[in-house]
Amino acid sequence: MEATTIRGAVIGADLGGTKLMAGLFDGTDQLVARERVEVGGLDQDQLVEALADMVASLTARSTEPVLGAGFGLPTTIDQRTGIAVQAANLPIADLPVRDILRERTGIEIFLDNDANVAALAEQRRGAGAGVTDDLIMVTLGTGFGGGIVAGGRIVAGAIGAGAELGHMSIDHDGLPCVSPNCPGIGCIETYAGGMAMMREAAKLIEREPQGALAAAVAAGAPADAETLVRLTREGDTAATAVITEMAERLGTAFVNFVNIFNPGLIVVGGGFSPSLDLLLPIARKVVEERALRPGNTYVRIVPAEFGPDAGMVGAALMARDGLRRGVGIG
Amino acid sequence: MEATTIRGAVIGADLGGTKLMAGLFDGTDQLVARERVEVGGLDQDQLVEALADMVASLTARSTEPVLGAGFGLPTTIDQRTGIAVQAANLPIADLPVRDILRERTGIEIFLDNDANVAALAEQRRGAGAGVTDDLIMVTLGTGFGGGIVAGGRIVAGAIGAGAELGHMSIDHDGLPCVSPNCPGIGCIETYAGGMAMMREAAKLIEREPQGALAAAVAAGAPADAETLVRLTREGDTAATAVITEMAERLGTAFVNFVNIFNPGLIVVGGGFSPSLDLLLPIARKVVEERALRPGNTYVRIVPAEFGPDAGMVGAALMARDGLRRGVGIG
Repeated sequence: MEATTIRGAVIGADLGGTKLMAGLFDGTDQLVARERVEVGGLDQDQLVEALADMVASLTARSTEPVLGAGFGLPTTIDQRTGIAVQAANLPIADLPVRDILRERTGIEIFLDNDANVAALAEQRRGAGAGVTDDLIMVTLGTGFGGGIVAGGRIVAGAIGAGAELGHMSIDHDGLPCVSPNCPGIGCIETYAGGMAMMREAAKLIEREPQGALAAAVAAGAPADAETLVRLTREGDTAATAVITEMAERLGTAFVNFVNIFNPGLIVVGGGFSPSLDLLLPIARKVVEERALRPGNTYVRIVPAEFGPDAGMVGAALMARDGLRRGVGIG
Repeated sequence: MEATTIRGAVIGADLGGTKLMAGLFDGTDQLVARERVEVGGLDQDQLVEALADMVASLTARSTEPVLGAGFGLPTTIDQRTGIAVQAANLPIADLPVRDILRERTGIEIFLDNDANVAALAEQRRGAGAGVTDDLIMVTLGTGFGGGIVAGGRIVAGAIGAGAELGHMSIDHDGLPCVSPNCPGIGCIETYAGGMAMMREAAKLIEREPQGALAAAVAAGAPADAETLVRLTREGDTAATAVITEMAERLGTAFVNFVNIFNPGLIVVGGGFSPSLDLLLPIARKVVEERALRPGNTYVRIVPAEFGPDAGMVGAALMARDGLRRGVGIG
């Protein structure tokens, strides 16, 4: 039986900490309309309202029937029940969002973690398109998000709570996790990401109160990753050491991804994207030196091709996959 | 379209460092004959000969046509080419074993890493049967082997070199890997497994030349995991500390599996099976304390149900899967 395109449009939506972005994709999966609303400060009920309103608004603009909507959410998700269990940066907890939205909108609703759907977008339409079915996506920003596509399918776990790649420990005796929601020790997010760099910046200012970072901060720069990266580009030794250490630990995380998954690609996006020219060469060297043959040289480690649209596009692809499975096609 | 049983038998074979075990499975996947040969000391050509002879011998005993054979090999495998790339404990390197065996036997040949096929056996017919589609299998013996089943399918990676779970680093600044083939730092195999315990036993004897371990070894016991476990059961403090440290690091590996994969089960087999009553409670506690909700309590960590037959059964299941895909059924 051949894969069949399902007639009708789908909606893909990406909920972040401050905004909701959504797109209407026609029966040939082309983006035909997009909308964006601010959600900062909304409570849980208002967030649900915003999601339902977005579906209604895009549906009104569609010339085809809208069959389903996919949502990338910044939460852990229990796929058995369609419940958004907990979120780091939004007031969502134990919310039966799939059932609520299904009832409110009358269409099929599909959920996954925002990083998982971004990984799917990169594999099908971004850096992985035509290249590999096995891809690890890392979103390096304030934290360290992750998504896994193996054999062309999202790996989300038994109840959909997987791919928390930022909470892989690379130091059994290390620091408590920087994330307040994580009881882990030595999680990679604790060493690589914006929160980690704020901690390291504070330590560096204390260690070298006459140093370049302390001077920059006294002059009004933030004590954060962006300033550390700028000082590294300007040749400051202390900042370079901090950024190099982060990149090497990022490399150890990538070693683990290579040995565990043997991916064709590791794709890195997120707020650190403008700094990847500094970080990735160091991380790649760690992978070449420490990961097992033949995966160590087979993997390519590249910046994400999608920018902010990754979650929206991936959510629509997920919805299309779900509709195909649901009606036994493809 | 419904899944269809393919008419005909399959062979499943498991090649280890010292023996080759194989079974004939009839059209309903029941084991109807089994054979075993010693392979210790054989060179690469002789090993290939032994594999081909085994297929011929079991085929001669079948009352149905034999459609294919699956092999679990203790090697990294390039699935694109069917080449066994390298082995830790056998003289196999860059061997195009799929093509050779296909030509020698005239039937379809399927390959995967021995730990991957053992994981498939546990998921379909062992601890995971009817319980979960998402399972991590750890083979804890001399080394630390691993297999991954996600959504009911083996996760083997882009070129089949994945699931080297023993080479996940849990210590970025740790010890060089105990495996001579691995350039890694802080791999879990370096802290949990028979090789790790031999190193720790030697260190303990040096540290406490008058201790219980030194006395046991002087009396003829091996300086290894088995003796450390026995002394732990007898209440020796120093041995208990070594075994506890191993179990805690095993726990950190399991934390990573939970956060990355959200498995329904972590199944532990291998030579340490008689010691799991000591190890698993400690490892479980680390998972409960350090892994993310809800995966930390959702996962069950249990001993393997299959003994030595896991690889053979899993190899046959893999062959059946491969035949179904190959002829477009199921």
